[in-house]
Amino acid sequence: MSKSIFYHAGCPVCVSAEHDLINLIGNDNVQIVHIGEETSKIAEAENAGVKSVPALVTPNGNVLHINFGASIEDVKG
Amino acid sequence: MSKSIFYHAGCPVCVSAEHDLINLIGNDNVQIVHIGEETSKIAEAENAGVKSVPALVTPNGNVLHINFGASIEDVKG
Repeated sequence: MSKSIFYHAGCPVCVSAEHDLINLIGNDNVQIVHIGEETSKIAEAENAGVKSVPALVTPNGNVLHINFGASIEDVKG
Repeated sequence: MSKSIFYHAGCPVCVSAEHDLINLIGNDNVQIVHIGEETSKIAEAENAGVKSVPALVTPNGNVLHINFGASIEDVKG
């Protein structure tokens, strides 16, 4: 199975919740991408269907938008 | 570890994504509650901090609101 990818932008409010989710799925099964720092990954995230962060893209290609941290447009800004 | 609880209201759009998440966490680690059918669980969900469904309440008590299906108020409707 390919990994899930967790896109985030360092939203401090969500850190605890994010770690919880990653622990549930298993650290080894998730690639974590901070699009605020790795801005080159923003296009990749958008192509995957990510509209806001934090979001989890599952191996099946489903996008789960979790809570609401920031829109992709805001991260670009 | 206690189980996570996944609250939903049968949102058809989200079914595939929900199943994905549940598969990632592991079916045995998640209790699934359909608050549209089990309306007696609505108060329990609200007490846990659930504002909208689908949502996952983790064993640590964090609430992850996933995408946006319906507000709790709408389910009460």
